[in-house]
Amino acid sequence: MTSQVLDGVAVAKEILKGVSRRASVLRDAGRAPRLATVLVGDDDASKTYVRMKVNRCSEVGIESVRIDLDAEISTPVLVAQIEALSADPAIDGILLQHPVPGHIDERAAFEAIDPAKDVDGVTRTSFAAMALGNPGFQSCTPGGILRLLDAYEIPLEGRHAVVVGRSHILGLPMGMLLLGRDATVTYCHSRTRGLAEILGRADVVVAAVGTPELVRARWLKPGAVVVDAGYSAGDRGDVEQPAAREVAGWLSPVPGGVGPMTIAMLLEQTVTAAERRAGG
Amino acid sequence: MTSQVLDGVAVAKEILKGVSRRASVLRDAGRAPRLATVLVGDDDASKTYVRMKVNRCSEVGIESVRIDLDAEISTPVLVAQIEALSADPAIDGILLQHPVPGHIDERAAFEAIDPAKDVDGVTRTSFAAMALGNPGFQSCTPGGILRLLDAYEIPLEGRHAVVVGRSHILGLPMGMLLLGRDATVTYCHSRTRGLAEILGRADVVVAAVGTPELVRARWLKPGAVVVDAGYSAGDRGDVEQPAAREVAGWLSPVPGGVGPMTIAMLLEQTVTAAERRAGG
Repeated sequence: MTSQVLDGVAVAKEILKGVSRRASVLRDAGRAPRLATVLVGDDDASKTYVRMKVNRCSEVGIESVRIDLDAEISTPVLVAQIEALSADPAIDGILLQHPVPGHIDERAAFEAIDPAKDVDGVTRTSFAAMALGNPGFQSCTPGGILRLLDAYEIPLEGRHAVVVGRSHILGLPMGMLLLGRDATVTYCHSRTRGLAEILGRADVVVAAVGTPELVRARWLKPGAVVVDAGYSAGDRGDVEQPAAREVAGWLSPVPGGVGPMTIAMLLEQTVTAAERRAGG
Repeated sequence: MTSQVLDGVAVAKEILKGVSRRASVLRDAGRAPRLATVLVGDDDASKTYVRMKVNRCSEVGIESVRIDLDAEISTPVLVAQIEALSADPAIDGILLQHPVPGHIDERAAFEAIDPAKDVDGVTRTSFAAMALGNPGFQSCTPGGILRLLDAYEIPLEGRHAVVVGRSHILGLPMGMLLLGRDATVTYCHSRTRGLAEILGRADVVVAAVGTPELVRARWLKPGAVVVDAGYSAGDRGDVEQPAAREVAGWLSPVPGGVGPMTIAMLLEQTVTAAERRAGG
């Protein structure tokens, strides 16, 4: 048996068609949606991610404003820069590319984003909305994963979902979203004992730690739904990918699984933010 | 083997000694801490809880202002009332007794509480702070449970903790707090399948649903740490209590376990809020 593919490229493409249509309505009204991207420092991977997002914006008719800041910038200066974008009426959405350099207080920088422009879903307000099931922008990767599962009509209610990883913008909100859909949810992480046994009982696995092939194929329950949200150099995910295809019922590839969904969510939320601002 | 007792009465008493000392410092400076309690309707259990909290306030030197509102009050009127307390410089902390009557938008009422006065830890801001490990007030029952476990030096790191229940002010933040202490955390709830098997693997169980004796003694792993956060008429908890004493390694009684800890947390956070306001 070979697992079926959770094809993020195909699903993202459908989402972006709708985004493109909505962006053109706004453009025709003279209110083209506009995303500000903020990049601190010159990490190659981060630069690549920002470039991909900016390119994708232009393909769907979202304007972007790139703000590239020196790696040595201080937290107060970064916060002031983001506050200025929050106050700028010409900006609909703000993306602070993370991780930021270690000397910066990332949480302070995130909180400088106006929740109405938090299209990447990183503020406390957005996190609480996700966790408590209130309206708000979603953290793009977990939100995109849920959309991917929904596109393939994967049932979640009453199923045991295991999230490996507990980062504030991925693992933690991912579990909250799955719990909101009535899955039984287990969070595993670096201190977890017996990861193999826990994964062996999981109906749904989301691997989100960034350690290549941490999740071994032999640990998976046959037929499980496996989402690989990791990405490491050399197109390696958090799941032992070729082997997992023989065990999982559904599997998201790397690349072409979660990545495109994350970007699609970002652009969709940017258009939503722009529509709200235009209507307000 | 009989389980050891997680004695909430004794631990709360120690906490309240400190609270009393700190309240008297504030009182001597002419800034007695003051808690506003808001009760909507005349549910007997809710009235009892408010009375207990008010009595305990007076024992430790916290002044209280009781606001009892008609069950028929509308959401906007309740919100306006709470906003007035948020703005009132004479009030340090605000407790909205829950549940409120079904026609009221409880989330809107909670959000009317200034986070600086949210000594019951019910706002989105407090929830996000708990979940993300940032400073902030804690939801009193999960915060109190963590304090109770700490008082008995129960290790949490790497242990499998199962939280039964996912309410916004108890189960959900409880799991986040345990995750913050490096436990592997599973959330179970009404849609969970195989609850008995999941509980059978748990090192730590927090039962928080309000269904009498939902958690059967025979499901527990021998030696497990069991916290019974339920309370139903007739002093019945969520755990099959007499029988569980023969299986669990540690068990919180009902009454005398979680209840006193919840109140102690409320009063401690009220004094903290008052100290911050006095210092500011």
